[in-house]
Amino acid sequence: MTERSESDREADVSVGDMGPEHFRRHAHEVADWMADYLATVGDLPVFPDLEPGAIRDLLPEEPPDEGEPMDRVLADFRDVVVPGLTHWNHPRFFGYFAITASGPGILGEMLTAALNVNAMVWRSSPAATELEELTTDWLRQLLGLPPEFDGVINDTASSSTLYALAAARDVAWPDAHERGLFGCAPGRVYASDQAHSSVEKAVLTLGLGRSGFGAIRSDGEFRMDPDALAEAIRGDIEAGVRPVAIVATLGTTSSASMDPVAEIVQVASEFGVWLHVDAAYGGAAAIVPELAPLFDGWRGADSIVVNPHKWLFTPIDCSVLYCRRPADLVGAFSIVPEYLKSSEQASARSLMDYGVSLGRRFRALKLWFVLRHFGRGGLVAAIREHVRLARVLAGWVEQADDWALVAPVHLATIAVRFGPGWAPDAEDRANRRIIERVNRSGEAFLTHTVLAGRTVIRVSIGNLKTTHADVARVWASLRRAADIVRAEGETP
Amino acid sequence: MTERSESDREADVSVGDMGPEHFRRHAHEVADWMADYLATVGDLPVFPDLEPGAIRDLLPEEPPDEGEPMDRVLADFRDVVVPGLTHWNHPRFFGYFAITASGPGILGEMLTAALNVNAMVWRSSPAATELEELTTDWLRQLLGLPPEFDGVINDTASSSTLYALAAARDVAWPDAHERGLFGCAPGRVYASDQAHSSVEKAVLTLGLGRSGFGAIRSDGEFRMDPDALAEAIRGDIEAGVRPVAIVATLGTTSSASMDPVAEIVQVASEFGVWLHVDAAYGGAAAIVPELAPLFDGWRGADSIVVNPHKWLFTPIDCSVLYCRRPADLVGAFSIVPEYLKSSEQASARSLMDYGVSLGRRFRALKLWFVLRHFGRGGLVAAIREHVRLARVLAGWVEQADDWALVAPVHLATIAVRFGPGWAPDAEDRANRRIIERVNRSGEAFLTHTVLAGRTVIRVSIGNLKTTHADVARVWASLRRAADIVRAEGETP
Repeated sequence: MTERSESDREADVSVGDMGPEHFRRHAHEVADWMADYLATVGDLPVFPDLEPGAIRDLLPEEPPDEGEPMDRVLADFRDVVVPGLTHWNHPRFFGYFAITASGPGILGEMLTAALNVNAMVWRSSPAATELEELTTDWLRQLLGLPPEFDGVINDTASSSTLYALAAARDVAWPDAHERGLFGCAPGRVYASDQAHSSVEKAVLTLGLGRSGFGAIRSDGEFRMDPDALAEAIRGDIEAGVRPVAIVATLGTTSSASMDPVAEIVQVASEFGVWLHVDAAYGGAAAIVPELAPLFDGWRGADSIVVNPHKWLFTPIDCSVLYCRRPADLVGAFSIVPEYLKSSEQASARSLMDYGVSLGRRFRALKLWFVLRHFGRGGLVAAIREHVRLARVLAGWVEQADDWALVAPVHLATIAVRFGPGWAPDAEDRANRRIIERVNRSGEAFLTHTVLAGRTVIRVSIGNLKTTHADVARVWASLRRAADIVRAEGETP
Repeated sequence: MTERSESDREADVSVGDMGPEHFRRHAHEVADWMADYLATVGDLPVFPDLEPGAIRDLLPEEPPDEGEPMDRVLADFRDVVVPGLTHWNHPRFFGYFAITASGPGILGEMLTAALNVNAMVWRSSPAATELEELTTDWLRQLLGLPPEFDGVINDTASSSTLYALAAARDVAWPDAHERGLFGCAPGRVYASDQAHSSVEKAVLTLGLGRSGFGAIRSDGEFRMDPDALAEAIRGDIEAGVRPVAIVATLGTTSSASMDPVAEIVQVASEFGVWLHVDAAYGGAAAIVPELAPLFDGWRGADSIVVNPHKWLFTPIDCSVLYCRRPADLVGAFSIVPEYLKSSEQASARSLMDYGVSLGRRFRALKLWFVLRHFGRGGLVAAIREHVRLARVLAGWVEQADDWALVAPVHLATIAVRFGPGWAPDAEDRANRRIIERVNRSGEAFLTHTVLAGRTVIRVSIGNLKTTHADVARVWASLRRAADIVRAEGETP
């Protein structure tokens, strides 16, 4: 992003949009910046060592009265914004779930932004609706799901799960769509104590209240206990509480554990309850032949969410909701006002009917680019490599004194713990101090969780740029931080 | 997007992501395509004259086993996808609400895609959270709203309205957060019969049922009747139905009518009911001094939604929800699991707590670019020009035999009707045939609505490339289509 002439600056501050040639120049500058970023992001600190408010302090509190030259805006982007970011597209980002904005995905987003179409109904942009149908069907085939599963793209798994549970609610109480939940006996949605917070948020949103969420205990490997599930449902039915839905998780957030979905399908079937599978993170692994057995039984679900923006190299946001009962999904939401009616409704799907959001970005384009660029073979190879790296790291952890794996390794997110044999509270603090040290060093980014009451360090491997050397480096950082923490003692 | 060498093709199909230099080349190709598109989109048919399924028929039903060269993917984009789009970024797109992906907004989205950060908590990307706070506060100042209004960016107004009404629900029934709506007396949300469908969808989602939505009659200018509102609330209270919220609309979808919000504030205050203002479309006009009086009273609302992706030249998606009672919004949703806790929670906002979606794109970046590129002056000038063009067109309609304005013109979306004096049903059909003719010609894109029981043609002006000549051209197209329809007679 270079200096420009005075006339360019004039062009910038005129009323209205920048012209196409003015846009072209900046788009090329930005394209170069992006390529440089992708080439060198690994040299940046992953996490900025800042205090809250540090970025706002550098920026004016009031909006400008006059337009500003784009060069100045882009300079502030580089100088103020970028140093204040946690770099999710960094090879040593191991926090939350590690993700990738791949090249083809970014190209798709560029075009999506320029087109700015809205895929709410077929007519509002036919190719956007049809490409969404096509790409979600391609992904369904890659995942090994049967054709009954109808896909639609939402922003996040939180939305996808909300929509699925809305359908389940309306199936559980057929009158609720008309009369609401008022006067109904209470109902409950079940998920394991390891399920994602979005399940409980959805339950709250849908009007079931916190008591409408039933946490089912998980076993020693953090998998939902199907017997405990059946027992909870049986007890609720006896107490007059209606079972609304079960949410099974394939790839939990804390430890990437895999609920025994084949057994859970049996329970759902026995009680006639909607089964939603949260495979937002784990689902991608179903593409890999040797990992597919982990998903045995998920075809028996009523709905499944898989997020290509998690482990399928697609820039956020892109969450695919599959539903074997799409009419129930549409039934929960469809209200078609006059200004959205169009003549082809009988022959074309209106994707707005499958959820809350009317406005729908053209998210299928980036997913289509990614699936074509990688092909099945490329996706399998990339996911397989992440799982291999996770196992390498897990092996090192198992060999190390004072370190332990806290959960079995199925996918590419592992949970580890530094355990020098101190009192549990002191060990918890030590693990937090280790994370804080590694993060502040900028070498890697990690997040914690709590498993079986103990603070645990998560390491999620999911960026395409992550190599064996990066994994070795985060492990060295962890051990170095642990040495310092050990030297400081239990209460530094 | 030109031909490439054999070695490039090899690079494309290797396992994993494209390298930075490979990305750089395609990013420059795409940047040029985007600039060309912005320069020439006005020469394309606005709407593709296709039948449903036409795009899918051109594409393989199965995903590729091996990765494909990006050149082939981009060629299919140009040859198959682009001809199948309705071009929302076209100067003669007058359907739904006309919008603009402006240059600075597109540049912001490019960078957002490459960074791929997630603004769920401060730590997950500090600058993304702080820039979201900053830009929503800048916009608040531009809109003339007081500092009590706290802003957060959501994907769409549908989500923003859902979140606001979730807060209202939990305020109306303080026990509902814990126990759900079971056993509560029924409640109701009120909006005019012109309100957007997202209000009713939110009511359904929240568990209030269709009977939980009360449509208040609008007056001859399609504005909510505050007396009818007060009467409905009074009647409901007497009947044991709890008033939950009122939704006032500033810029309705059918006719851009403006509810008398100052009077509605009085009603909300009298009954102690949450007032949400849907200014998703209209809100932008509050920036223009001579239009600001249309918004008198909206400061008295509890929550307001304004969508920069509608009339503020920001690529979709970008919807800002302002809330004067942010604690109530957080209260409705906040569930913080262990893996998302971080040490700075006391001093930094976690934006994920303000709604359902956990994953949150870095949408503030594009909004910041837009606000800086245009400045207050540029925004005022652009919106003012759209309103001026709408009035010019309205003047032509008023002068024309057989044509009539169906609603007063406040903003830049007008409702018109061809009325040759036939039977009402025949006239309705004629107006639909006119839209169909104009759309199939590719010259302009229009959508219909129904106002006071009659089919009406909407013309929404909101693209920055739209000129006086474009407005003259759609008017000529409408009259030409009407001449043909008239010649065909009442039942062609």
